[in-house]
Amino acid sequence: MTIAENWTVKSQQDVAYSVEIVKDVLDVSNLALVDGESGARRLIVTDNRVNDLYGDRIRAYAQTNMAEHRLLVLPDGELNKNWQAVETVLEAIDNFKLDRRREPVIAIGGGVLTDVVGFACSIYRRNTPFVRVPTTLMGIVDAGVGIKTGANFKTGKNKIGTYFPAVGNLLDMSFLGTLDKRHISNGLAEILKIALIKDERLFSLLEEHGETVLASHFQEGTDYEIEIIARSIAGMLEELEPNLWEHKLERLVDYGHTFSPNIEMKALPELLHGEAVNVDMALTTAIGLHRGLVNRDQAETIFGVMHQMGLPVSHPVADQRLLLQALADTTRHRDGKQRLPLPVGIGNAVFVNDLTEADISAGLKLVAVLGAKAASAIAPQVAGSEAAPVASEEPV
Amino acid sequence: MTIAENWTVKSQQDVAYSVEIVKDVLDVSNLALVDGESGARRLIVTDNRVNDLYGDRIRAYAQTNMAEHRLLVLPDGELNKNWQAVETVLEAIDNFKLDRRREPVIAIGGGVLTDVVGFACSIYRRNTPFVRVPTTLMGIVDAGVGIKTGANFKTGKNKIGTYFPAVGNLLDMSFLGTLDKRHISNGLAEILKIALIKDERLFSLLEEHGETVLASHFQEGTDYEIEIIARSIAGMLEELEPNLWEHKLERLVDYGHTFSPNIEMKALPELLHGEAVNVDMALTTAIGLHRGLVNRDQAETIFGVMHQMGLPVSHPVADQRLLLQALADTTRHRDGKQRLPLPVGIGNAVFVNDLTEADISAGLKLVAVLGAKAASAIAPQVAGSEAAPVASEEPV
Ligand SMILES: NC(=O)c1ccc[n+]([C@@H]2O[C@H](COP(=O)([O-])OP(=O)(O)OC[C@H]3O[C@@H](n4cnc5c(N)ncnc54)[C@H](O)[C@@H]3O)[C@@H](O)[C@H]2O)c1
Ligand SMILES: NC(=O)c1ccc[n+]([C@@H]2O[C@H](COP(=O)([O-])OP(=O)(O)OC[C@H]3O[C@@H](n4cnc5c(N)ncnc54)[C@H](O)[C@@H]3O)[C@@H](O)[C@H]2O)c1
Ligand SMILES: [Zn+2]
Ligand SMILES: [Zn+2]
Repeated sequence: MTIAENWTVKSQQDVAYSVEIVKDVLDVSNLALVDGESGARRLIVTDNRVNDLYGDRIRAYAQTNMAEHRLLVLPDGELNKNWQAVETVLEAIDNFKLDRRREPVIAIGGGVLTDVVGFACSIYRRNTPFVRVPTTLMGIVDAGVGIKTGANFKTGKNKIGTYFPAVGNLLDMSFLGTLDKRHISNGLAEILKIALIKDERLFSLLEEHGETVLASHFQEGTDYEIEIIARSIAGMLEELEPNLWEHKLERLVDYGHTFSPNIEMKALPELLHGEAVNVDMALTTAIGLHRGLVNRDQAETIFGVMHQMGLPVSHPVADQRLLLQALADTTRHRDGKQRLPLPVGIGNAVFVNDLTEADISAGLKLVAVLGAKAASAIAPQVAGSEAAPVASEEPV
Repeated sequence: MTIAENWTVKSQQDVAYSVEIVKDVLDVSNLALVDGESGARRLIVTDNRVNDLYGDRIRAYAQTNMAEHRLLVLPDGELNKNWQAVETVLEAIDNFKLDRRREPVIAIGGGVLTDVVGFACSIYRRNTPFVRVPTTLMGIVDAGVGIKTGANFKTGKNKIGTYFPAVGNLLDMSFLGTLDKRHISNGLAEILKIALIKDERLFSLLEEHGETVLASHFQEGTDYEIEIIARSIAGMLEELEPNLWEHKLERLVDYGHTFSPNIEMKALPELLHGEAVNVDMALTTAIGLHRGLVNRDQAETIFGVMHQMGLPVSHPVADQRLLLQALADTTRHRDGKQRLPLPVGIGNAVFVNDLTEADISAGLKLVAVLGAKAASAIAPQVAGSEAAPVASEEPV
């Protein structure tokens, strides 16, 4: 008799998760955090800064709505985004002996915290559900809506991690009230990214209200605050959903992420992620102008918005040499092609594969001009105003 | 204007991978290991025992067929199946600077090695392909055909890991020639599992040739050697394919794996995994007899085959108390129901949820009787024969 000696195994994994903007997630009468079920057992993980600010409310919430809980507090900051932190979460899950079918881990914090907890949950018994509650703007519009988890390894940022969705993502803007202003700017950069590549209306909202939401930390309860956040998330999810595992290499959401990894790395710890992204977007906007994809007016408007939102458009480390190296590195990661998103006007983009050294050099020169103009155009207006201290908080 | 404030993200991940029985994978003229491409760059990972035995051939193969390679050797054994080993692989991948799209890592070894390398690959940049070359019988029929990866964490076996398919699984039976006989028995237990739950023909092959393949390590090149392996894999894949992520909790391939985790843990390091599985299968066969699912003849035949294949049917740690605890633990992991596969005759099974203490106690008594009978029935036949030393190698 003959029997097969080779096989092809084929299957499909279904993924579905929810993302929702919620109000007052720590209000004891809001059962969203325990999925409507009172008397639950939950392991909650947060970082020490968030614990200082919200620990009492988290504990009060748990005491009211959970039969049993443990609150694990990790050290905050990018430097603590390592295997040690992942292991601490794994141990806590193990000790808490949670029922993986009914007791999702709850992660409350910025992108560092939610990435680490998500990573730990994804590998504990190969799958332990978690609920994500981002507390930074970067978390609300970016780290808290996709399926990437991770930790840094050796010198590499996010070198280890998994694709693993949180079962629920509860976005509560009220956390932003206590966030450092610089971290509001940081998140605004990712919102601006979505605006530039695909949402002209979102750009107009930033143009009109960017300075205000930066000053108010999105705490005035206006319609445009919510609209800015919701449009940004909707745009992000529209790009992520068809490409959750990043098989497709031409990704609009990679806009601002071509040169920025090297800039961020080299400037560390001077620039935050969103700030490095903005330096990249400023450069590529200038290159767009040089190539005739963006006109002068549009470029000036974009630089003006960046400036108002407290974002740097250049940095000393981002010189011609580093930028060329960054382009080469990114090209390698994008399987040998640049696949570089460039803005087309405001709200559209195109992928190019033929960026040259001359483009970069022309872009750098234009950045200097546009940056200076934006700074001088704004400076007199804000002198003595509320926004002045913001400008002085800028890292460059 | 109104804009959505909650979203459901839905997607499907396609998984496809191949499993093939190949001949002489280390033959320099066989390009399967480099996917047909000569002049490739590859990182190869193996363990020290396999390196002692096959290192020269692996190096010769790499020198002929690869433009560049590195051979990483990990310490062998279950005790080394830990994060430290995963990290060593991550570092090697990082240092080798491999092109994740074209240069899959090659893992050559037993289940410990391939589980660890698979885990490291799955998390390095969230996805780094690997090719699996199992060198033990357990690897060829079980660890090397599914999508589970893992490592031990603290006291927990496989407590951390991922679902991540190897891009290719190259099964070369010639490795079995150097394997300890006890590890052949170990793998035969998993083959027997498939036979008992779903393949009467496979059981007949084991009945007829089990003793021979154990003695010859599957190295005689007969048709039945290949048929035993191929039927076992085919049966395994048939069960795995519709349930790769183990969402379904009623799994036939869990047969023999209800009581065995606790038995294996408690008896450590005395029993190998397959040996503990066999103690479980002997008990559940006896329970099947007690419940009238299996008749006396069938039970005796099954115990006879177990004995011939060098597998223990009982162990001192597997007493009533431990077995009850094991059942409780398994029930918890199966979401509150026993979902216990029991054999029906030979080659069929049924799931039950009503196993009692009395069933276990009756089973234990029958195991003693059936075990003694199998031992005495076989002993005189093998006295002075080739198989005698095998029997004395048995752990119980
Ligand atoms: N998974 C993804 O898809 C994804 C996307 C973008 C970014 N990220 C990751 O996210 C990380 C950056 O996230 P981040 O910007 O949120 O940084 P972060 O988590 O380090 O938070 C920044 C600081 O703010 C503090 N903080 C958090 N919430 C606060 C609050 N409500 N009030 C006051 N202080 C608060 C934190 O303790 C920390 O000190 C990076 O590691 C990045 O790789 C991941
Ligand atoms: N991923 C899965 O689906 C899956 C399935 C079953 C088992 N497993 C895992 O596999 C592991 C057990 O695998 P295993 O039984 O292969 O053990 P193993 O990998 O420890 O190998 C057993 C011993 O044999 C040696 N060896 C390997 N190949 C040899 C050869 N050709 N000749 C001589 N010696 C050789 C090894 O160095 C080791 O000392 C367990 O950790 C178990 O959890 C995983
Ligand atoms: Zn970003
Ligand atoms: Zn097994």
